[in-house]
Amino acid sequence: MRFRSQHHEHDEGTERIEAFSDGVFAIAITLLIIEIGVPVLTADESLSHALRHLWPEYAAYVLSFVMIGIYWANHNSFFKHFVRSDHFFLMINVFFLMAIAFVPFPTAVLGEYLDNDPERKTAVIFYIIGLLLPAIGWLSIWVYGNQDHLIDENLDPDYIRFLSFQFVGSTAIYLIALIIAIWLPYVGLIITAALTALYLLPPRPRQYITQTGDEPL
Amino acid sequence: MRFRSQHHEHDEGTERIEAFSDGVFAIAITLLIIEIGVPVLTADESLSHALRHLWPEYAAYVLSFVMIGIYWANHNSFFKHFVRSDHFFLMINVFFLMAIAFVPFPTAVLGEYLDNDPERKTAVIFYIIGLLLPAIGWLSIWVYGNQDHLIDENLDPDYIRFLSFQFVGSTAIYLIALIIAIWLPYVGLIITAALTALYLLPPRPRQYITQTGDEPL
Amino acid sequence: MRFRSQHHEHDEGTERIEAFSDGVFAIAITLLIIEIGVPVLTADESLSHALRHLWPEYAAYVLSFVMIGIYWANHNSFFKHFVRSDHFFLMINVFFLMAIAFVPFPTAVLGEYLDNDPERKTAVIFYIIGLLLPAIGWLSIWVYGNQDHLIDENLDPDYIRFLSFQFVGSTAIYLIALIIAIWLPYVGLIITAALTALYLLPPRPRQYITQTGDEPL
Amino acid sequence: MRFRSQHHEHDEGTERIEAFSDGVFAIAITLLIIEIGVPVLTADESLSHALRHLWPEYAAYVLSFVMIGIYWANHNSFFKHFVRSDHFFLMINVFFLMAIAFVPFPTAVLGEYLDNDPERKTAVIFYIIGLLLPAIGWLSIWVYGNQDHLIDENLDPDYIRFLSFQFVGSTAIYLIALIIAIWLPYVGLIITAALTALYLLPPRPRQYITQTGDEPL
Repeated sequence: MRFRSQHHEHDEGTERIEAFSDGVFAIAITLLIIEIGVPVLTADESLSHALRHLWPEYAAYVLSFVMIGIYWANHNSFFKHFVRSDHFFLMINVFFLMAIAFVPFPTAVLGEYLDNDPERKTAVIFYIIGLLLPAIGWLSIWVYGNQDHLIDENLDPDYIRFLSFQFVGSTAIYLIALIIAIWLPYVGLIITAALTALYLLPPRPRQYITQTGDEPL
Repeated sequence: MRFRSQHHEHDEGTERIEAFSDGVFAIAITLLIIEIGVPVLTADESLSHALRHLWPEYAAYVLSFVMIGIYWANHNSFFKHFVRSDHFFLMINVFFLMAIAFVPFPTAVLGEYLDNDPERKTAVIFYIIGLLLPAIGWLSIWVYGNQDHLIDENLDPDYIRFLSFQFVGSTAIYLIALIIAIWLPYVGLIITAALTALYLLPPRPRQYITQTGDEPL
Repeated sequence: MRFRSQHHEHDEGTERIEAFSDGVFAIAITLLIIEIGVPVLTADESLSHALRHLWPEYAAYVLSFVMIGIYWANHNSFFKHFVRSDHFFLMINVFFLMAIAFVPFPTAVLGEYLDNDPERKTAVIFYIIGLLLPAIGWLSIWVYGNQDHLIDENLDPDYIRFLSFQFVGSTAIYLIALIIAIWLPYVGLIITAALTALYLLPPRPRQYITQTGDEPL
Repeated sequence: MRFRSQHHEHDEGTERIEAFSDGVFAIAITLLIIEIGVPVLTADESLSHALRHLWPEYAAYVLSFVMIGIYWANHNSFFKHFVRSDHFFLMINVFFLMAIAFVPFPTAVLGEYLDNDPERKTAVIFYIIGLLLPAIGWLSIWVYGNQDHLIDENLDPDYIRFLSFQFVGSTAIYLIALIIAIWLPYVGLIITAALTALYLLPPRPRQYITQTGDEPL
């Protein structure tokens, strides 16, 4: 069987990285549930009590699911800012995906220890680090992609500055939440959840340089 | 490498949400088996006895597999009712997928405790809640999508009313099964299984407004 | 965003079922490794001994991986025998996938108990049942699909008879292996492995009715 | 519903094997995190200590993630060297994927025992074997694919020799690292990590026979 035109020169690599990223998003998001173990009942505990006692697991599941879901929803439109790709661009994306695929672990740690008084602080800090890593990865993609040969040169410079501000800002908020969590774990967590909730709003549409009022070619 | 026409304006977002949904369906459905642990034999138990003793796990596996399989089978044709999408529409879909990805957990709880006399009731109620959540998610997609700018305006209003009736009805049956399960767990479970079995029948084909007997344009 | 031509009548359902099936194959095949737990060393055991002691797990992993890999490899060309689909056809496919997704569990049971003298028989029988189920599913797809409105009517009747013979034959060999395993577990397992090895050979190419020596239109 | 032109003769098998391979890559890479269990605290241990104590798990996660990520990144461009496929070619690919899907297990073993003085050596050797297997699989695809009817005959013979040298060389380095690890586990591991790091560099572009200085047709 013959399967490919012989000199298929224009690389399909970016449809592949988006498909691969979508795969990692879908798998990481679905694996979140695996980390919630079926409760093993102790002597005089009821299943009903044990299932209600899992509320930190449910909360962590919902927060992480929405967070990965938002990254997924934005990833595709994010990539529309770039008109070319290169090897290091793909590699930075692999590192970003490594941070996404890591999320189920701090989520499980948070679910297990949020309800545990002496360990809550550690669990929340570890979880916020787990959300900070993909934010840094995303920012790295943006910074590296912001080069002449990669970015779409028809994008409005003001719009690009807005995005830079947004991505640096989000990363900074995770950092601030992390620092606050050292003293007030729940406040740190609420800031993180609020930032995630903000991203549920529609993203700002891409803006292009208009030449004498026209749409870009 | 160059990878995208620069102003590829018509959004590919919905092929992506369907591909992503299909991914979550496929992963959630395949993860169901992970929840069945290899039996660890106690002193004088045989493997044969232990494997037969897992019948609630097998039953829960089959029921949840068929249930997710039906959602998968219907999801694609369901989306054909809508001709446009918007940001909140995608977000509601993410919440629906969150309910689908949750299913392996109540399935595991049911498999573990269906055979346990004092805890059966709790396990069944928890499982029906686990099925009720995607039904509510599906209904939410339908309600939100039933707006002028999203739904296909050539659909027959009678057909739309039929679907609304069907989706509200299914959700109501899950609710009734849940209430019945408080007294009669097995009856609640059988109602749930019967509702799933009903969905194995072919869905009603989409019906369009016919203009003087013609097929829609 | 607008995402679909409004009356996109030719159903995309079968590309979807193949993509979904491929997803389930890929996930089930990759989940096989999850069932091999990292050994927990007992008092005077070395890791080296423990890892070598896992040989039944490795053997079961290889056999099940190759088996699912072959089903995957044949599934696509298998579907080329059918020119149409219907609702029940899809549902039978869902049941086939349920049997494929089940395979990691009997594989894990075999890996755990193959080395256990009194329980070997049960583990092997359970494993062969685990392989028999997808064989029955496959045969069911073939039998149901062998109807005028589904199958490609240009296929050579002799070739169709050959396939029927092959699929019934494979199912029968699993059944025979299962019965033999009641007395001779290893022999039953070797027959199963040999049948799998046979499928590593290239499949017979599809044969069409030739009309006065021509290729079909 | 009708779903396929009846004599769709040019096999889609290789898009499928690439999609399937991508699926296995994405799942195997995302499953790596599952192997890191949430720490169960002993009497006077803090969560903070336990999470820091998991550094070998994090290190093994990063190394294996990058390694599978690189295989994924190179797999697609690797397949562009071949213009045809056959049954055994697909089967060798299945064996390669079996080695990729196996990686999470030696990764988990390394993560668990790297910090364990008497067992470090075994864990490192087992891990290097786990990386050696896909390298051998990759080399096997290359050797088998290097036949007249499969490989693109317009590739520059010097370039082909370079690739053969590279693939044999990588496999040899894993073997050398394995032998060194018998005496110096950390050195063996560092060689392995360094080899992986080398692959982060851009791959050499494909080179074709130039006919009187022209690009290939």
